[in-house]
Amino acid sequence: AVQLGVDGGEDEEEGKVIYMVSDGTGWTAENSVNAALGQFDHCLVDRRCAVNTHLFSGIDDVERLIEIIKQAAKEGGLLLYTLADPSMAEAAKQACHLWGVPSTDILGPITEAIATHLGVSPSGIPRGAPGRKVFLTKEYFKRIEAIEFTIKQDDGASPQNLNKADVVLVGVSRTGKTPLSIYFAQKGYKVANVPIVMGVELPKTLFQIEQEKIFALTINPVVLQAIRKARAKTLGFHGEQRSNYSEKDHVREELAFASRIFALNPVWPVIEVTGKAIEETAAVVLRIHHDRKQKCSMPRISRRY
Amino acid sequence: AVQLGVDGGEDEEEGKVIYMVSDGTGWTAENSVNAALGQFDHCLVDRRCAVNTHLFSGIDDVERLIEIIKQAAKEGGLLLYTLADPSMAEAAKQACHLWGVPSTDILGPITEAIATHLGVSPSGIPRGAPGRKVFLTKEYFKRIEAIEFTIKQDDGASPQNLNKADVVLVGVSRTGKTPLSIYFAQKGYKVANVPIVMGVELPKTLFQIEQEKIFALTINPVVLQAIRKARAKTLGFHGEQRSNYSEKDHVREELAFASRIFALNPVWPVIEVTGKAIEETAAVVLRIHHDRKQKCSMPRISRRY
Ligand SMILES: Nc1ncnc2c1ncn2[C@@H]1O[C@H](COP(=O)(O)O)[C@@H](O)[C@H]1O
Ligand SMILES: Nc1ncnc2c1ncn2[C@@H]1O[C@H](COP(=O)(O)O)[C@@H](O)[C@H]1O
Ligand SMILES: [Mg+2]
Ligand SMILES: [Mg+2]
Repeated sequence: AVQLGVDGGEDEEEGKVIYMVSDGTGWTAENSVNAALGQFDHCLVDRRCAVNTHLFSGIDDVERLIEIIKQAAKEGGLLLYTLADPSMAEAAKQACHLWGVPSTDILGPITEAIATHLGVSPSGIPRGAPGRKVFLTKEYFKRIEAIEFTIKQDDGASPQNLNKADVVLVGVSRTGKTPLSIYFAQKGYKVANVPIVMGVELPKTLFQIEQEKIFALTINPVVLQAIRKARAKTLGFHGEQRSNYSEKDHVREELAFASRIFALNPVWPVIEVTGKAIEETAAVVLRIHHDRKQKCSMPRISRRY
Repeated sequence: AVQLGVDGGEDEEEGKVIYMVSDGTGWTAENSVNAALGQFDHCLVDRRCAVNTHLFSGIDDVERLIEIIKQAAKEGGLLLYTLADPSMAEAAKQACHLWGVPSTDILGPITEAIATHLGVSPSGIPRGAPGRKVFLTKEYFKRIEAIEFTIKQDDGASPQNLNKADVVLVGVSRTGKTPLSIYFAQKGYKVANVPIVMGVELPKTLFQIEQEKIFALTINPVVLQAIRKARAKTLGFHGEQRSNYSEKDHVREELAFASRIFALNPVWPVIEVTGKAIEETAAVVLRIHHDRKQKCSMPRISRRY
């Protein structure tokens, strides 16, 4: 899905409207709608079915809820909601019915399925409701520590700390090491990334740490060249500098140089990132990472709540 | 929900089991289940209803799907899935029925609602399926640029670039500026954060840039002191250094110092972060940010697909 912020103006009126309402942050609704819209890429790309989404978060009283639904009715919108309080969810359903707004409860069905499975009723209390006390859990501190570690280790900084990382990424410039590192950090993994640059020796510590946590990234040379050209433009490279960085032969040679290093280190899984979104590459890496740690018959990522 | 990785071992056998299956990354399932489990915090905290989740991503053939469902049946698990291919989704449903595994399709209902709303059928093609070509869209580059900018601007670095940020966060140490900045960066916002330290002057550029994009963070002093104590321990502070950083009077004075600065800059919204998860604070800040930019009657975050 081609995504553009609407703030600029232009064409705001055209296209179908989707309203998203949450008593919380709204990120569950946003993520779910984003994934579901992936199923309509075939008509989104050529604008045959342009879609405007509007996210309303922190909606915890019926008055505002009703006001939003009235507005959705005016715009002919679809309403997708996550409301923990059963009376709010019911109010949404009723009001939508009354004003002819099609609607779907995003989390209702899975919350019910979990309730039946656990034999426990859901609290009905939205996140962030007054009186709910939260965090300063181990997990909270771990995530923040991971983010701060990962920022400090970006782009080959402090190779003496590679042993402290949970995951180490290696690859040539513009294979997505930085955004991938940050994505992992948000999930609580400490990540270090080490660039491969032709003619520059890799830090010795890279070969001294646990090799099973190192992942190599590779990419199609034509795509890499396109990405680097865009990058060189942004950075304002020119002349010699630019040609070295984004010219075809250089890009191919650098990838070949990286491949030779990877071949010498067969424990490092080589992950192809071409055409993958950051979160897709992340899924592949984490699958292998957990598989190696668990050594269980079916690769899976497990958590305990 | 108290979350602990299961990899360590201990107690793995106890508790109810939830299987999550996706033909994609599995992050939609993970996020949705995480939010839904928030509704069971009341019994998760005291371990009355411990839950073990197992995520299976990239499941794109029936054989592996069936194998997973058989395993779920053995463990008495609940199966929650996102499968774009209708024949895979149907196979999941049938197999679950056959082996008595309770199951719910996470995205099915909203994908159907969107299909009806748009008058277009979903493609049925999972993300990452061969032949689907992706990205190098504006959005892709924007997100990466935002992440790289934000990393470079962490902790008051390069104040001469504050004008290039979309959002600027100010607050004393341990109000969550860094994780919040990174969270925004992932969403494509360029963020700079500027620490407030007693006795240290704020950069002049902070007062020269557009003031509407500056957000101030504040926190309860008792909670801040607890966070700083944990931090001082991690960093191995001791003696004088430690007492200044995490002692009660110093923490109170520093927050009072920050409050005076905020009072002198009434355009900066002051966001209370106490007891809020990073994504909750993010929701509050983005709501105000979009509201200010759009100046529309109902605060909302809009996007165009
Ligand atoms: N930790 C939590 N505790 C209780 N409810 C939650 C929690 N996290 C998310 N929810 C609920 O799940 C839905 C989606 O949350 P959000 O993604 O913040 O919009 C909302 O109805 C929230 O109230
Ligand atoms: N960009 C996309 N195009 C097509 N399908 C998608 C896209 N993003 C997510 N999906 C589908 O949505 C579901 C959830 O995706 P995920 O969060 O990656 O597990 C899966 O069935 C994916 O195949
Ligand atoms: Mg980088
Ligand atoms: Mg910081």
